[in-house]
Amino acid sequence: MVTLLLVAASMSTAIAQTISPQMQEKAAQLAGEALADDLAYRLVESLTTEVGPRLAGTEAEKRARQWAVRKLSALGFANVRVEPFELPVWVRGLEEAAITAPFPQPLVIAALGGSTSTGPDGVEGEVAAFTSLADLAAAPVSAVQGKIVFIDEVMTRTQDGSGYSVAAVKRRNAAYTAQQKGALAVLIRSVGTSSHRFAHTGQMRRLTDSAADTGVPAAALSAPDADQLQRILRAHDGVRLRILLTPEQRPAGTSGNVVAEIPGTEAAGEIVLIGAHLDSWDQGTGAIDDGAGVGIVIAAARHLLVAGPGGLRRTVRIVLFGAEEVGLVGAKAYAQRHAQTLSQHIIASESDFGAGRIWRFDTGVDEARVAAAQELGVWIRQMGAGPGDNNATGGPDMKYLREAGVPVVGLRQNGWDYFDLHHTPNDTLDKIDPQDLAHNVAAWVSFVYLAANGGEYYR
Amino acid sequence: MVTLLLVAASMSTAIAQTISPQMQEKAAQLAGEALADDLAYRLVESLTTEVGPRLAGTEAEKRARQWAVRKLSALGFANVRVEPFELPVWVRGLEEAAITAPFPQPLVIAALGGSTSTGPDGVEGEVAAFTSLADLAAAPVSAVQGKIVFIDEVMTRTQDGSGYSVAAVKRRNAAYTAQQKGALAVLIRSVGTSSHRFAHTGQMRRLTDSAADTGVPAAALSAPDADQLQRILRAHDGVRLRILLTPEQRPAGTSGNVVAEIPGTEAAGEIVLIGAHLDSWDQGTGAIDDGAGVGIVIAAARHLLVAGPGGLRRTVRIVLFGAEEVGLVGAKAYAQRHAQTLSQHIIASESDFGAGRIWRFDTGVDEARVAAAQELGVWIRQMGAGPGDNNATGGPDMKYLREAGVPVVGLRQNGWDYFDLHHTPNDTLDKIDPQDLAHNVAAWVSFVYLAANGGEYYR
Ligand SMILES: [Zn+2]
Ligand SMILES: [Zn+2]
Ligand SMILES: [Zn+2]
Ligand SMILES: [Zn+2]
Repeated sequence: MVTLLLVAASMSTAIAQTISPQMQEKAAQLAGEALADDLAYRLVESLTTEVGPRLAGTEAEKRARQWAVRKLSALGFANVRVEPFELPVWVRGLEEAAITAPFPQPLVIAALGGSTSTGPDGVEGEVAAFTSLADLAAAPVSAVQGKIVFIDEVMTRTQDGSGYSVAAVKRRNAAYTAQQKGALAVLIRSVGTSSHRFAHTGQMRRLTDSAADTGVPAAALSAPDADQLQRILRAHDGVRLRILLTPEQRPAGTSGNVVAEIPGTEAAGEIVLIGAHLDSWDQGTGAIDDGAGVGIVIAAARHLLVAGPGGLRRTVRIVLFGAEEVGLVGAKAYAQRHAQTLSQHIIASESDFGAGRIWRFDTGVDEARVAAAQELGVWIRQMGAGPGDNNATGGPDMKYLREAGVPVVGLRQNGWDYFDLHHTPNDTLDKIDPQDLAHNVAAWVSFVYLAANGGEYYR
Repeated sequence: MVTLLLVAASMSTAIAQTISPQMQEKAAQLAGEALADDLAYRLVESLTTEVGPRLAGTEAEKRARQWAVRKLSALGFANVRVEPFELPVWVRGLEEAAITAPFPQPLVIAALGGSTSTGPDGVEGEVAAFTSLADLAAAPVSAVQGKIVFIDEVMTRTQDGSGYSVAAVKRRNAAYTAQQKGALAVLIRSVGTSSHRFAHTGQMRRLTDSAADTGVPAAALSAPDADQLQRILRAHDGVRLRILLTPEQRPAGTSGNVVAEIPGTEAAGEIVLIGAHLDSWDQGTGAIDDGAGVGIVIAAARHLLVAGPGGLRRTVRIVLFGAEEVGLVGAKAYAQRHAQTLSQHIIASESDFGAGRIWRFDTGVDEARVAAAQELGVWIRQMGAGPGDNNATGGPDMKYLREAGVPVVGLRQNGWDYFDLHHTPNDTLDKIDPQDLAHNVAAWVSFVYLAANGGEYYR
């Protein structure tokens, strides 16, 4: 409580120092205009309808890049370009699972990204059930060998998405731990919060983290199916499953980041980077993940483009990352390609948490610059968001920039419902509330305006 | 308003006439006991877990009958038996659909029950879109021939399920109308009310309604997919689809009704029939449709079995119908087999509308007997339900009994959410609220007690 009061006090002072009433007023005016506009929604609608699913490295993701170049050019941005990169490409195949004993019935699964194949005949075996990845890791080989592992750990629903980081650990590692112990395959309870019968896919080990082992075939089980299997396991021994997964790993494909700019006037070499990711998983149309982010950042920048009087001091750079889902491949490619100018990236952030409203404004800047960075959220706080901490990640694709010292902020969205839909076939346009999306655009407009027109540094 | 007051007045009079305060008190006591008991939930859990999906005429439906015989016997019912019958059996095959032009992407579909196959190569063609079945029926052959028909009609969400009767018409008829006009296949917007990405299956023409034509291959499209297709159709000409459906029609299989009784004491030949259906569609585990009904009627009867002082005057007969989903085949078989004793069926009703609470008590009896029949709902109305009309169907499986003159009542459940889950893979145990289920059991206990221990006739 004392800390919060001190932060609040120091912010008031700082606001008086660096952001003029005129800038505050202009930020609020731009945000107000954004609230009344539906450009972001129309962009998400267009992307999810005209491209649909856009898995990293596929022809569909290429069409998404073409879509982005077309839209960004038509909207009047400068320096619109694709920055391509190579990556291995994983594509989903058949996926079937069934309880074979004692109560034969089908189960709803989705292969995890990067899963190996069971081969066309599938695998069949007894279930070895564990309550967590740690539980599996601690088990003797004899308890796992020749069996199908089931990790049944329930994800916690949270506003800030913190339940996801915990739950995703098993998705990232289960296939390799199970392989070390000689398992036939592994099923995890979906990393998700809904009780609808969708399995939530997601990447195993990131493509950017190479390693020698390939893991056993791995899939997520929908929550009602995990409940069902658990009920049977509690009452019966010798429960058996059959799993068929035939994904393919292709050695090489192309992805790319799409970049566009509003060139700065007085300080064109200083970059305010706003990002989202263009790729999606293959089963939904990627509306909340991350069509929403794509719509939000493009619409926010477009408002600045048409409404900024005499332009903005600094350059606003939109980066629509490719191949985020499979392991931040686009993020890494961007950081490598732009290594020489990362020191001129003044501040950066990504919108990648759906379309829920913003409830907190976090920073990830030099400790001495927290107050100054918090000023960028002044309109956002006026709308009811609270100041957060200085542990902002800035979003997944900011990882390598952050590690290279680029300051970030987090416009934290309410993620209470996000993981109901995340990485499922159910991630479709109808799940987005246009009003909530417009609220996000307004928040981003105000932040970007203050960052791009101000003179502060955050490192 | 005047009518309602008159009905209320006549009921009060009638209640004073035929149901003693002692019987009312006993009905309320039995209902109170049922409210505190979880037998119905345990039965639904057992059926949906240990059998799971149980499509008419399959091995799984046979296991459901075995389950029912085992449970009913163990619970102490008399005359537990299967009354078998034959039927053609339809089984789902592959089902895939995609937009091929202008924006290639997969769609989520489910073959309709009874659909013919496209063959292993599927069909591909331009879309001919219609807003209703009537719209299709009115179209010239030239607008349909060689095309894939899409009927995009949104179902109305209603408490009483009335939106379903309207919407189901296209599901029952589209394939045949489309065939008359030379279509390649037909897609309908799912008969359902949810925006989750599930396609709702359901039977085309009932097996009990034979005809010469077989219809074109037919499937339901999930609501978000119908939205997507509609968005594209509004903006573009020449939209094309590919559809692959490989269901199989097998000439003969076996189903059956499972029957159990509490024999009456003074009037054992007089039957109070309470039903539910044991079969389900093949993709969910049939929890709300109709595991809930199975649990409700068995649990209600079980309460009477153990708590009725000195037994009940009339025989209570539980009938768990087979092959309801494919066209009331079990209902017809029951009516034929028991044709000689239908005149001794005093009153009948089926629970087949999920697990929502009862909000209305309808009758389907001789006009002169409405007041007497409404007395059977006295406890139900005390719990807040209103008296309904005299147009009760008694539930789908009561069709042939009703047509043969058997009086029915309808314990009308709140179906506001029922068609969110109905006939989808998402119809699973977790969707049932145990308290709501117990409320249903209590209502049925009170009704059955009053019907089986009273001396009234309703025809
Ligand atoms: Zn994302
Ligand atoms: Zn994602
Ligand atoms: Zn039903
Ligand atoms: Zn049904």
